[in-house]
Amino acid sequence: MNEETETAAVTYYPWEKESQVAPGESLLDAAEDLGIGVEALCGGEGLCGTCKVVVEDGADCLSAVTDADETLLSADQLADGYRLSCRATVEAPGRVDVTVPSVSQKSGGIVLTEGNEMEFELDPVVRKYHLEFPAPSLEDHTADAERVMGALADGYGLSVADMDHGVRRELPNRMREEETDGTLSVTATVYDDGEIIDVEPGWAGEMYGLAVDVGTTTVAVYLVDLRTGETAAVSSQLNPQSRFGGDIMTRVRYTRRNEGGREELRESIVDGINDCIDEVTTEAGIAAEHIYESVFVGNTAMHHLFLRIEPSYVAGSPYVPANHAPTAVKARELGVDINAGGYLYWLPISGGWVGPDKVSVLLVSEHYREEAMTVCIDIGTNGEISVGNSEKMWVTSAPAGPALEGAEITHGVRAQDGAIERVDIDPETLLPTYEVIGDGAPNGICGSAVIDALAAMFTVGLVDRRGQFRDAVMDHERVRTNDQGVVEYVLVPDGESGIDGDVVITQNDIREIQMAKAAIQAGTLVLMEELGIDTVDRVVLAGGFGNYIDPESAMTVGLYPDVPIETVESLGNAAGIGAQLALLNRGAREEAKNVVDAVEYFEIAGTDVFRDNFMESMYLPHQDYDRYPRVQERVEQIRDVEDVVQRG
Amino acid sequence: MNEETETAAVTYYPWEKESQVAPGESLLDAAEDLGIGVEALCGGEGLCGTCKVVVEDGADCLSAVTDADETLLSADQLADGYRLSCRATVEAPGRVDVTVPSVSQKSGGIVLTEGNEMEFELDPVVRKYHLEFPAPSLEDHTADAERVMGALADGYGLSVADMDHGVRRELPNRMREEETDGTLSVTATVYDDGEIIDVEPGWAGEMYGLAVDVGTTTVAVYLVDLRTGETAAVSSQLNPQSRFGGDIMTRVRYTRRNEGGREELRESIVDGINDCIDEVTTEAGIAAEHIYESVFVGNTAMHHLFLRIEPSYVAGSPYVPANHAPTAVKARELGVDINAGGYLYWLPISGGWVGPDKVSVLLVSEHYREEAMTVCIDIGTNGEISVGNSEKMWVTSAPAGPALEGAEITHGVRAQDGAIERVDIDPETLLPTYEVIGDGAPNGICGSAVIDALAAMFTVGLVDRRGQFRDAVMDHERVRTNDQGVVEYVLVPDGESGIDGDVVITQNDIREIQMAKAAIQAGTLVLMEELGIDTVDRVVLAGGFGNYIDPESAMTVGLYPDVPIETVESLGNAAGIGAQLALLNRGAREEAKNVVDAVEYFEIAGTDVFRDNFMESMYLPHQDYDRYPRVQERVEQIRDVEDVVQRG
Repeated sequence: MNEETETAAVTYYPWEKESQVAPGESLLDAAEDLGIGVEALCGGEGLCGTCKVVVEDGADCLSAVTDADETLLSADQLADGYRLSCRATVEAPGRVDVTVPSVSQKSGGIVLTEGNEMEFELDPVVRKYHLEFPAPSLEDHTADAERVMGALADGYGLSVADMDHGVRRELPNRMREEETDGTLSVTATVYDDGEIIDVEPGWAGEMYGLAVDVGTTTVAVYLVDLRTGETAAVSSQLNPQSRFGGDIMTRVRYTRRNEGGREELRESIVDGINDCIDEVTTEAGIAAEHIYESVFVGNTAMHHLFLRIEPSYVAGSPYVPANHAPTAVKARELGVDINAGGYLYWLPISGGWVGPDKVSVLLVSEHYREEAMTVCIDIGTNGEISVGNSEKMWVTSAPAGPALEGAEITHGVRAQDGAIERVDIDPETLLPTYEVIGDGAPNGICGSAVIDALAAMFTVGLVDRRGQFRDAVMDHERVRTNDQGVVEYVLVPDGESGIDGDVVITQNDIREIQMAKAAIQAGTLVLMEELGIDTVDRVVLAGGFGNYIDPESAMTVGLYPDVPIETVESLGNAAGIGAQLALLNRGAREEAKNVVDAVEYFEIAGTDVFRDNFMESMYLPHQDYDRYPRVQERVEQIRDVEDVVQRG
Repeated sequence: MNEETETAAVTYYPWEKESQVAPGESLLDAAEDLGIGVEALCGGEGLCGTCKVVVEDGADCLSAVTDADETLLSADQLADGYRLSCRATVEAPGRVDVTVPSVSQKSGGIVLTEGNEMEFELDPVVRKYHLEFPAPSLEDHTADAERVMGALADGYGLSVADMDHGVRRELPNRMREEETDGTLSVTATVYDDGEIIDVEPGWAGEMYGLAVDVGTTTVAVYLVDLRTGETAAVSSQLNPQSRFGGDIMTRVRYTRRNEGGREELRESIVDGINDCIDEVTTEAGIAAEHIYESVFVGNTAMHHLFLRIEPSYVAGSPYVPANHAPTAVKARELGVDINAGGYLYWLPISGGWVGPDKVSVLLVSEHYREEAMTVCIDIGTNGEISVGNSEKMWVTSAPAGPALEGAEITHGVRAQDGAIERVDIDPETLLPTYEVIGDGAPNGICGSAVIDALAAMFTVGLVDRRGQFRDAVMDHERVRTNDQGVVEYVLVPDGESGIDGDVVITQNDIREIQMAKAAIQAGTLVLMEELGIDTVDRVVLAGGFGNYIDPESAMTVGLYPDVPIETVESLGNAAGIGAQLALLNRGAREEAKNVVDAVEYFEIAGTDVFRDNFMESMYLPHQDYDRYPRVQERVEQIRDVEDVVQRG
């Protein structure tokens, strides 16, 4: 198996990672090459002893025990095969098995990527411990559960008081499956240092978790290896609750009007998630029993409907959720097909529609920790907005509706092949240019292009600041009044398009987009008023939409405040990333609770202050143009190029 | 409704107990007449304020507020209707509603009777709290769960972190059912100060618990009012697991040989208990949802089979149970029909066959706290034995078999109508006298009479110390050899009996009883040897059998050590009483854990020391007659009366 005959094949446990190690290389260096973090406080100088490992097999292939080993390790440890990994070098070819005990493991920084880098310690709530202890006898008839708990205390200094009842039921059998000369060997899985949730015979290191992002439209399931922090597989599908209604309110109404409706909705989303679990476990080739926890994010309604909590009251004024605190429920209580003793953990809820998804976004954006005054918007059917900094932060949820996602737009489509994703309009000719996803002809406009189109139509003066087609452009070849008497702009003429007819943007479409952006803009402004500020330092966008949107266009229509364009940042699917973070680092969960405590929830629904701001925000970019100096300047520059129309 | 026109009808809450109170009588005195304990540290002199109550309605019927009220109660309290109950007297007829707040309630001593008196504080693990708080609004949009928890903290200083998931699901609805002028009113049920397990609209004081004694043969269910400590109803039935085998080993074998056998056994016992719950709730006229906890006792095998824990290993050497610690499981996890958020709580296990039933007996007997050296025996198919005092105590379980309960005896029957329950034999004529349960003719011999008969046959010299019929009595009219060549003594001749034929005791029957008593006796002697003692100060008997047995007869055959007969005490169904104790007093549960820690478990099965003692204990009363000086003296006295036979 050795690629070079002189190397030794060293396998590191508990990861079971193998490396071909050349003569003279130390076990410490070889581990680091594999990405395994071994503690070495003295820098590998043989001074501190923190890098000790257990050579289980193949000691013959290694250098002899050194003085440093003898000094820093106890006689018992030496007898058990302990070595300083910085001192032990490969000397001869062969196979070497090395266990890095948890005390020597460096909690290495994990980087979650998706455009966005986050470094954190790998410190999951779920831990596995290998235990060896004498089999029961007439002389030592300690009960099974107490025997396992005693071994945990003796071996790891861990005092665990609870055991899942399902584990206790099978414990007498499982505990005795692997015995050698009167010594039993088991792996105990411990949840949050407090409960034994699995006991397996022998050593079973596999340990996975799920991060689940339950969107109103789409569900995404990430299978994460809790030993390494790596994502092993991903699966997503439409939220099966959609058959009870595309939007939240229709689903909530369904539960009110149908006996057992809540149970139907729970069952449908759980079935969907179980399908995803089936997919990711098959892809990764692992057993679902080795998934011990699933961390969930989603909006408050998704939280309630998944957990079968009565959703009526959070869906109507004053929009109060059933709970703020994180919700941990045994997987078997909800029917989710992971280890039956495992847990489903929902991040906490700030208030109303500002749910675990927004808390997750805040966890990732971290702007509640920074001095810069930041607006963070998670754009979806409801736009979750936070404004503030480390001193003070307000959050709210604004009813944007689906227009920004391309729905309720005459030729709106999802971001798929054939969808127009970028639009620009020549200020001179007023003719459009556009980009299409994939190779085909354009068959519609997706959300990002809808924003682009409106921004461009405004910039070049096709529409005025109220969003109305200007009289001066009515004779332009691409502007016409349709059969219903509605003015429209032809983006793609028939023949050039992939559909039977033109692709157009109508006056009504523009109204829809104006209302959507005005809701988010007004929500933001309400929070800014609450903070007593007129401007912010930066804008952070979360959600898939934030990835596709053109920051310039979005600012031009007024979706968010006027800031230097380079300070607009997109976090990608921050909600899903936050769920993974909470899965891999227990501190992140505490932090999520702190976030909920730190932010103030503002319920804008039905308030005069929101209504007033909404009316002003219907303008492009806002009734008070002076709030948008950068937009104003840019629009004037473009119109200067060719003064086709007057300033609207 | 008033019996005398001048009295007022005063109802005390939370008990809803009503009293006709004469003019001039104080609310404090009237409460005491009803058995309601109201704290009154100053003796009802209006000095301490500890007797304060809330007059909810009918203040017009009472005397005016006194200076003492004004001094000892705050302005807020006075406004809320608080009064010193020692100062407020009835003045006019009418209806008065008085709430005694928990701070004013005296935790009265509760006496559990069943021959045996135990006094203790009423301090159940389950508590109910009436909460009132403002309905959610746009200004105060704290989530529902946190609102309830906040009201608990504000009103009662109780910080409760958890809420049952089933409660959370329905909380948004139930919380809003009872609203007056923007104030919501609910009753929260809290388990062990840590978890909200029920929320009901308005004030709902009903609060019950079950004490369940799961015997191998019989299941008994006591419905207990947790507000008063009173037993509201009792139901018992044969353990339905009997159809899988009358004894434990057969049932355990069934689980091993049949897939799903453990689930079948769990289902069968749970069905039986649910039938009992149906009966007791119907009899008491209460809703099963108001039962919040069930405390269980039973032997270790019953514990395992009820909880569906693998029983194979506790059933075979070295007889190690799955756990020692108390087991608390949500009722819904096992399918027991009490409040779904409620708990099933099994008392802890000492070791092997010394299960929650024996721990419960020790809790009631309390001999682990006394200086006197005591033998405590719970007689059943397995005799659970403890020997020791406050300094040191050993426990074990001895395989007595069912003979002492009348099984495997030729004419053995259960203690029912027609069963002979007492036997004596005239030392002169060697003719028997007997007592029968009920009015009918005797149809068999129950356990207690079997012991009587053997004791009498030995005392009068019909059998020798080895339990064998003596040659000298073979010609007696009541002694004969039957068709199988076995010698037998005719207790009731045909014609006089209620069956078709004689009622007899055979040589084989005597052997069965000898083996049963020898098992218990040997178990006791092993523990005495372990303690290095030859004699004990007293004997305590537990179990129904201990109630019926004649202490003199039992000592004569050697069932327990020779002690002054007046020190032999019977506790009745101590296991069931201990379960009620643990239900009503949380300290008793802690005490049960202490008991398990304090006692040393000795596994006698398969040991030489048990085998040796067993052989010596086959003798009547023991091979070493000098261990039984009082028995010896009495036998000699009786034989002196008429020296019919020689000393055996």
